[in-house]
Amino acid sequence: MDSPVRQHSLREHNLALVLRRVATSARPLSRADVAAATGLTRATVSTLVDDLVAGGLLCELDPVPRAGVGRPATGLALSPRGPCGLGLEINVDYLAACVTDLSGTVRHQIIRHVDQRDRPAPDALAAVAELAADAAQVAVAEHLPIAGAALAVPGLVRQHGDGGGTVHVAPNLGWRDVDVPAKLGELPLRVENEANLAALGELQAGEPDPEASPSFIYVSGEIGIGSGIVLDGQLYRGAHGWGGEFGHLTIDANGPRCHCGARGCLEQYAGQDAILRAAGVPLTDPAGAGPAGLDRIQRLAQSGDPAMLGALRAAGTALGIALAAAVNLLDVDAVVLGGSFAPLAPWLVTPVEEELATRVITAGWSRVAVRPSALGPEATVVGAARSVIRDVLAHPAAWLATQP
Amino acid sequence: MDSPVRQHSLREHNLALVLRRVATSARPLSRADVAAATGLTRATVSTLVDDLVAGGLLCELDPVPRAGVGRPATGLALSPRGPCGLGLEINVDYLAACVTDLSGTVRHQIIRHVDQRDRPAPDALAAVAELAADAAQVAVAEHLPIAGAALAVPGLVRQHGDGGGTVHVAPNLGWRDVDVPAKLGELPLRVENEANLAALGELQAGEPDPEASPSFIYVSGEIGIGSGIVLDGQLYRGAHGWGGEFGHLTIDANGPRCHCGARGCLEQYAGQDAILRAAGVPLTDPAGAGPAGLDRIQRLAQSGDPAMLGALRAAGTALGIALAAAVNLLDVDAVVLGGSFAPLAPWLVTPVEEELATRVITAGWSRVAVRPSALGPEATVVGAARSVIRDVLAHPAAWLATQP
Repeated sequence: MDSPVRQHSLREHNLALVLRRVATSARPLSRADVAAATGLTRATVSTLVDDLVAGGLLCELDPVPRAGVGRPATGLALSPRGPCGLGLEINVDYLAACVTDLSGTVRHQIIRHVDQRDRPAPDALAAVAELAADAAQVAVAEHLPIAGAALAVPGLVRQHGDGGGTVHVAPNLGWRDVDVPAKLGELPLRVENEANLAALGELQAGEPDPEASPSFIYVSGEIGIGSGIVLDGQLYRGAHGWGGEFGHLTIDANGPRCHCGARGCLEQYAGQDAILRAAGVPLTDPAGAGPAGLDRIQRLAQSGDPAMLGALRAAGTALGIALAAAVNLLDVDAVVLGGSFAPLAPWLVTPVEEELATRVITAGWSRVAVRPSALGPEATVVGAARSVIRDVLAHPAAWLATQP
Repeated sequence: MDSPVRQHSLREHNLALVLRRVATSARPLSRADVAAATGLTRATVSTLVDDLVAGGLLCELDPVPRAGVGRPATGLALSPRGPCGLGLEINVDYLAACVTDLSGTVRHQIIRHVDQRDRPAPDALAAVAELAADAAQVAVAEHLPIAGAALAVPGLVRQHGDGGGTVHVAPNLGWRDVDVPAKLGELPLRVENEANLAALGELQAGEPDPEASPSFIYVSGEIGIGSGIVLDGQLYRGAHGWGGEFGHLTIDANGPRCHCGARGCLEQYAGQDAILRAAGVPLTDPAGAGPAGLDRIQRLAQSGDPAMLGALRAAGTALGIALAAAVNLLDVDAVVLGGSFAPLAPWLVTPVEEELATRVITAGWSRVAVRPSALGPEATVVGAARSVIRDVLAHPAAWLATQP
């Protein structure tokens, strides 16, 4: 709205339009199909497609015979050798890297289990840069160019205009006001909250549908409780990038003290350590986080332990109360249970649905879907890689400009 | 993104760009100023301005001498005779109509105090249509064309594609599944939740700033408690138009039963009747709503009545807990207290700010502003009228197409 449309931006817009149409089609499209679907002339489409093929974003498939007269049409598809996204993640007890291609397919993934607690931030950043270099080397060997990188951290991030950012606080990493540069070697680097990136991964996990613009809240119980909010098919970041701080919604104003300083936050009822505590299980580590704690919860629940079943029910009720607030405010269609909430979904979905049915004012007209994350634990790092691809698909002209 | 940019939509985009630039400027702009500000050529700007002047959207002011060489430049401004918006409101104890011009200035306003409770919906719609006709007559007499109408109702609205909508429920009017047509006589009519329209009115109440894209939550305590959410300068409606159902956020899961069927909703702590009840005042009417109840609260608070001061403090605390949830989720910069919360702001702001400071996880980095509505009680009907103007300014080509 604030910038004029001129011939130059006209081409940028239409390049993105053509690329998106091919990307979201369930079958290869001919140039004529693209023209029909976009309303552009066939000549315009051909010029744009030539540019996208030359820039390595689209490829032409072998012609297949078709019904009717005329030459068989060449099918267009996203290039499997096109630019890739590099996703990176620093979390409490692991580092991860992931390379996804233009279609969002994971081409390479590395996870390194190293405890990051109390490790100085520069050391963690250096370690993830090393992992990134390993992943990039594999991509280069497969002739996959990398368009950029996105780093997920479990904390509050303020992005700078140039792409870098400041992690204001990442409580479980012990980080405070850590600056992350805008470059990782030669690659542009963006830093983002983990739940935001997982929500983006979830958004692209479904069947591509060019008309869909889903609205959902992705809640992650991995470390603390965070969320990513997708409104009309777009990640909602908030005025400063701090949206989705779901773990600190108040469940009981006079409840137990939270590490944030307030009382009765959701994390004190549905966080992993709160569940273990409520079930009378001694915490296996100071935060009650990590795979050991989650394993313990699952094993006890599977064995029918009444204390654990009660604790999970109470956690689901608290989660449902907070989710009802989010749905009443945001009018989203769906709730996605991610992180450790995904494997615990068999015990959480029912109490969550009960609270939504009672507390969401529009529950009588429109049921809110509650489902576990489609991607599982790797949602964050895959989402990070796909966020880079998302940018390439939205702004192909920027990628083409970097090509010789 | 989903439609191609061609010459036709290029013109539409640039018409809106030029109009918006003039509309948001603090001083009249010359054509050369507009060209410099938009990046369009002077020839293009001149053609677009000619169209906007011919269509009655812009007017040319008398040339004023200026520094430097060359002819004095003609200043451009929004036309005071340009298309107007007709705002309409059906509320519990009154009907209202309002005409605003392109600059958002109120040109005419009527309020008719008639109790709407238990009045059949068709009667209320007929009465508001009559009021609309009266307002339109005044506008015609002043040679002000009306571009469209927007009707505010205190309920859950699902808008139809054609502009009409269904009011699923408006509890304080006793409405259920009331269809509102897409036309009011010849005028296009849109129906919308009252708090959404009040939030839009608030958005346009400040000093125009083309760079500003504020994010705030407008909470209205007039009848029940509703809210309008503005994100990045745009009203957020939600997947079905039901966003902002703020009155039913849970304050205490085991609290008093709410008329919605759930327990412990915010309305049971900060609604007008809840405040009166907490202060030990017998309710003046069944809903405790209306100006009499509000007057009573204000007079007792002004006289320093300890029970009322305690009740207002408790209401402010509950409001603050719910607002902290909204700010944690949405990362908005500001909270606007509207409806009956505006005159009660002297007693509500402190407890609201205390809860925000404690419960908003980012409160240490960025203070959330809490302020009473700039527009006061007429926010809704003025916001309704301005929502029509907003559409004209965003899509001037659509208005021009209706002109002979």
